[in-house]
Amino acid sequence: MVGAGIMGADHAENLARNVGGSTLACVADIDAERAKAVASELGARAVTDPLELIEDDGIDAVVIASHDTTHPELVQACLAASKPVLCEKPLATTADEARRLVEAERAVVDQLGRSLISVGFMRRFDPGHVELRRSLAAGELGRPLLLHGISRNVSAAPGATNESAITNSAIHELDSFPWLLDSPIEEVSWVPGIPTSSEAAAGLQDPAFMMIRLRSGVLATLELFLNAGHGYSTQCEVVGERGTGRLVEPAGASYSLDRKNYVSFPADWRPRFAAAYRRQLQAWIRSLQEGTLSPMASAEDGLRASLAAEAMVRSMHNGGAFTQVAA
Amino acid sequence: MVGAGIMGADHAENLARNVGGSTLACVADIDAERAKAVASELGARAVTDPLELIEDDGIDAVVIASHDTTHPELVQACLAASKPVLCEKPLATTADEARRLVEAERAVVDQLGRSLISVGFMRRFDPGHVELRRSLAAGELGRPLLLHGISRNVSAAPGATNESAITNSAIHELDSFPWLLDSPIEEVSWVPGIPTSSEAAAGLQDPAFMMIRLRSGVLATLELFLNAGHGYSTQCEVVGERGTGRLVEPAGASYSLDRKNYVSFPADWRPRFAAAYRRQLQAWIRSLQEGTLSPMASAEDGLRASLAAEAMVRSMHNGGAFTQVAA
Amino acid sequence: MVGAGIMGADHAENLARNVGGSTLACVADIDAERAKAVASELGARAVTDPLELIEDDGIDAVVIASHDTTHPELVQACLAASKPVLCEKPLATTADEARRLVEAERAVVDQLGRSLISVGFMRRFDPGHVELRRSLAAGELGRPLLLHGISRNVSAAPGATNESAITNSAIHELDSFPWLLDSPIEEVSWVPGIPTSSEAAAGLQDPAFMMIRLRSGVLATLELFLNAGHGYSTQCEVVGERGTGRLVEPAGASYSLDRKNYVSFPADWRPRFAAAYRRQLQAWIRSLQEGTLSPMASAEDGLRASLAAEAMVRSMHNGGAFTQVAA
Amino acid sequence: MVGAGIMGADHAENLARNVGGSTLACVADIDAERAKAVASELGARAVTDPLELIEDDGIDAVVIASHDTTHPELVQACLAASKPVLCEKPLATTADEARRLVEAERAVVDQLGRSLISVGFMRRFDPGHVELRRSLAAGELGRPLLLHGISRNVSAAPGATNESAITNSAIHELDSFPWLLDSPIEEVSWVPGIPTSSEAAAGLQDPAFMMIRLRSGVLATLELFLNAGHGYSTQCEVVGERGTGRLVEPAGASYSLDRKNYVSFPADWRPRFAAAYRRQLQAWIRSLQEGTLSPMASAEDGLRASLAAEAMVRSMHNGGAFTQVAA
Repeated sequence: MVGAGIMGADHAENLARNVGGSTLACVADIDAERAKAVASELGARAVTDPLELIEDDGIDAVVIASHDTTHPELVQACLAASKPVLCEKPLATTADEARRLVEAERAVVDQLGRSLISVGFMRRFDPGHVELRRSLAAGELGRPLLLHGISRNVSAAPGATNESAITNSAIHELDSFPWLLDSPIEEVSWVPGIPTSSEAAAGLQDPAFMMIRLRSGVLATLELFLNAGHGYSTQCEVVGERGTGRLVEPAGASYSLDRKNYVSFPADWRPRFAAAYRRQLQAWIRSLQEGTLSPMASAEDGLRASLAAEAMVRSMHNGGAFTQVAA
Repeated sequence: MVGAGIMGADHAENLARNVGGSTLACVADIDAERAKAVASELGARAVTDPLELIEDDGIDAVVIASHDTTHPELVQACLAASKPVLCEKPLATTADEARRLVEAERAVVDQLGRSLISVGFMRRFDPGHVELRRSLAAGELGRPLLLHGISRNVSAAPGATNESAITNSAIHELDSFPWLLDSPIEEVSWVPGIPTSSEAAAGLQDPAFMMIRLRSGVLATLELFLNAGHGYSTQCEVVGERGTGRLVEPAGASYSLDRKNYVSFPADWRPRFAAAYRRQLQAWIRSLQEGTLSPMASAEDGLRASLAAEAMVRSMHNGGAFTQVAA
Repeated sequence: MVGAGIMGADHAENLARNVGGSTLACVADIDAERAKAVASELGARAVTDPLELIEDDGIDAVVIASHDTTHPELVQACLAASKPVLCEKPLATTADEARRLVEAERAVVDQLGRSLISVGFMRRFDPGHVELRRSLAAGELGRPLLLHGISRNVSAAPGATNESAITNSAIHELDSFPWLLDSPIEEVSWVPGIPTSSEAAAGLQDPAFMMIRLRSGVLATLELFLNAGHGYSTQCEVVGERGTGRLVEPAGASYSLDRKNYVSFPADWRPRFAAAYRRQLQAWIRSLQEGTLSPMASAEDGLRASLAAEAMVRSMHNGGAFTQVAA
Repeated sequence: MVGAGIMGADHAENLARNVGGSTLACVADIDAERAKAVASELGARAVTDPLELIEDDGIDAVVIASHDTTHPELVQACLAASKPVLCEKPLATTADEARRLVEAERAVVDQLGRSLISVGFMRRFDPGHVELRRSLAAGELGRPLLLHGISRNVSAAPGATNESAITNSAIHELDSFPWLLDSPIEEVSWVPGIPTSSEAAAGLQDPAFMMIRLRSGVLATLELFLNAGHGYSTQCEVVGERGTGRLVEPAGASYSLDRKNYVSFPADWRPRFAAAYRRQLQAWIRSLQEGTLSPMASAEDGLRASLAAEAMVRSMHNGGAFTQVAA
């Protein structure tokens, strides 16, 4: 496990305890204390140099959840070591870097006969997303025509910008929408609006409203609201010729209290996507055990999402015009 | 009651039976049989000439639900007779005609000291819309930022066109959105998409996706799907700085049958808006009894909606560009 | 209108403004100020003696919403004056009194050829109850087997007792359950439990749990919780051989705020049953205009509910044993 | 893994693939083909004699999901071999047998210093049940007063009887209700009703309605409907002094199709409780790894549930009278 921050600690715990077939051997973090804290709790070794971990012969596969900017170099090191790597999204912070990883992996595939890079677009393993995709693939809703997506956070991470809102948050939908509807993104549009006056959003166009057109012709829309305040929520409705399908957000119980009948929103993404993260890891581990193709998003998927994100950023800087995604 | 079609028959029954303070005196329809059928059932007189009804001294007020194209002439006749008139939407099929009615009414107001025209934008009396507007006005959601609207019909009326979808259907939202958010429409955009292959939609861009920007800066979106097939549905969510509010569609009961837990959609707008139609009539009748201002949409509101509709049609013919609403 | 308390004021406003075919002529209340306040607002005359109102030749029909204990005498006066009367529930506070009214009405029926007494079991006009009954009558759920009912108030009325909880509150279900399922009550059981420690419930077994067996064999259960605190709620699920049907409580809008997605409970029965009260009055007025049988609960229905309530009180005093309803 | 039927195959797959820390070593089933089919798919050894498996030194712990009647003997064998055992519910088909296992385990505890038996009441690991119990323990609903439970299956297993409906199905609630509310069952009542005419229910009182009184005074009710036909559903609402909490059944997506807005019911318990089964196994495995007390239901819990079930059967044969649970 490379990275012992919030996501890294979660992945580490899952690898050590909640999925079958894996042993957490080592945790790397530049912050030695953080690495030790996570590793000792889970019976693993701690190091500060991720390359030491990656190159360790006793380690079969690597999960990367360190800072986004470190992803390309670390993934390259995994390729050099011929080790399967699960890299948290985004695969890289620019499409150019993502493309170099795709190309580097291709050389490895030619040599090893199998690909090595998987990208952590965990919505592909969320039970709701999986069920919605199943119904679409089965034709139960007829041909899809529209998709309405909503992504709300309680508050933006410190330092968030209009660009990072796209490259770091909306990138989930830039992967999940074409995956759900089995059609790549052709053009995107970032529509100006008015921002919330929440302090955390100073300088941000938040919420942002985006349009995403797929090759199939489906028009997808996305409200991305980083400082929504009231709760974490990921919603999606697909409108087909025969009917619509909509994600139901998980909730164990509803309550009647204080004149309200309610279900609660989680404060962040971890409870919302806990099942997705575990199932993703489990599916990846099993593919490694069985020597089959990783069922996760590939490096090419990561590149495609980055290309769509860059087109969205261009649209933003260009008054919201529909902007082609580069090939 | 002028017009004894589907809406006219509903209004007539409400006037005769379900609201207080009114007596249904006369039903006019160019189809004498239809007029008679409705009138005799409800103890009223039937005529074929609407002007005969409007000019009858025994009649205090007029409801118009005849063909859209007849609205301007009949409303003018009501103004000439100094009679309050509830005209079904649209007030007129063009903004120019609507403007002439507004101007004609102004002359009457100068003379009588009160306005006469009310327009049947009944959503203003739908309990859900009223509740949502109340919470917004009370600031419970914080400053509004976005609105997501959906309007689905089972199938389009015969002869529907892309233009009539706007001027006849979307016109409801072109009135209700600015009313809900207390801010007029400044510009609109009609976004091209792919149409359903439903036969009834031949030649139509159906569903249509529209964007509506209010003077306050709120960006409102609207999916209008005339041939949605699966049910009649009017949805709306307003996103504010503190939280969101969403219409709940009325349903008396839910059922667990055949592996499904469900509520039913109505087949058309009448069950969905039955309460709104009755409450609108009741509020109008009461304002007539008490000599107070009509609480319904005014001729100016009708004109504003028509101007927004015409801007939307221009956007449609112009590739979807944001288009200013004429003053 | 006899009685100008909370219910009387509501009925008076509906009669004057919100239903067709009626004119509010007179409001009677022993509290002259209260009578005047309601009457003057609605353009009616005020009196303190209800008999003066009932015997007034200018008055065609009477609505009674005065104190429960006054119902029998006032209904008798209406019978003596041969006037249709809508009496709020309960028809009488004992089954004996209710029986005397049924018998007195029978004499009138023999003479006039029509009945005069209607009892205000308004749930028969609640859209949800009507829809659920329709689906049952249509056989959509198969033969009914069980019914689960819940009736929750925010807080009990001052002076509430275990007996009044049955004769005044549960009496709604003692009418609505057999009406929904079209089968009379045969036996009832009041099951002891533990009471809430809410101060308002001192001395009360609150909540109370009751079982009601119909002649058809259906077992109905009822949780009656007068001091539930969190909101006013009336729930009901009928379990049939093929599926179940459940009331959906009306709500205009749902909200996402403060980590919750919620709909609100009303504070009392008036918002919950506003439509039911209006529709009941409207249906009654129309039956008077058309000379048809009142569609409301009859005096016999009122008697049947009182007999079931008395059996429930006997069960309560008898440790909860199933107790036959007297014929 | 002892037993390779439906539940055994599920457990085996979870042990081999979906939980951390376990290796599926061996599958035993009297049907050699069935054992082989499950074992070979999952890389384990197959045997026909469960005792061979239990006594195998290479096996650290045993899961039993063979026929109910075999549980006591196999659990005894595990005790004899000093091996931790997860026994599917019921621990035994009679309370006497369960008691003998409790006593046998006590002797082992005296010797080894730790208990060995865990019982598969998986609802204790269902996210909804866990969340509801958390809110109750935190006092969010105030002191609990009532509990309404519903358990519906699509159709009864072949050979179901009124007794087995209690000892095999309702036994889940006879464990989960006292666990949720942290108070043991004192007395129970089985209330006669009318049965469905479904063929599969011939000779059964189905649905059955039961009442369960806890030592705390809480009255819990249970509708158990084995042949409900319309879907598998487990519902539960706890009514407290301040408010109520209710399970939300998991659903990934909702659909709008054919005039209905719906979520689907599963056909049986496996999708409904898939998370519960996995989390139960995971928690058990982890307690074995860490040498901590099993977080699952204990043999004593299994005995308590059996005692409550036997009291319920006595109530059933005794006209439904409240019947004390034996100590």
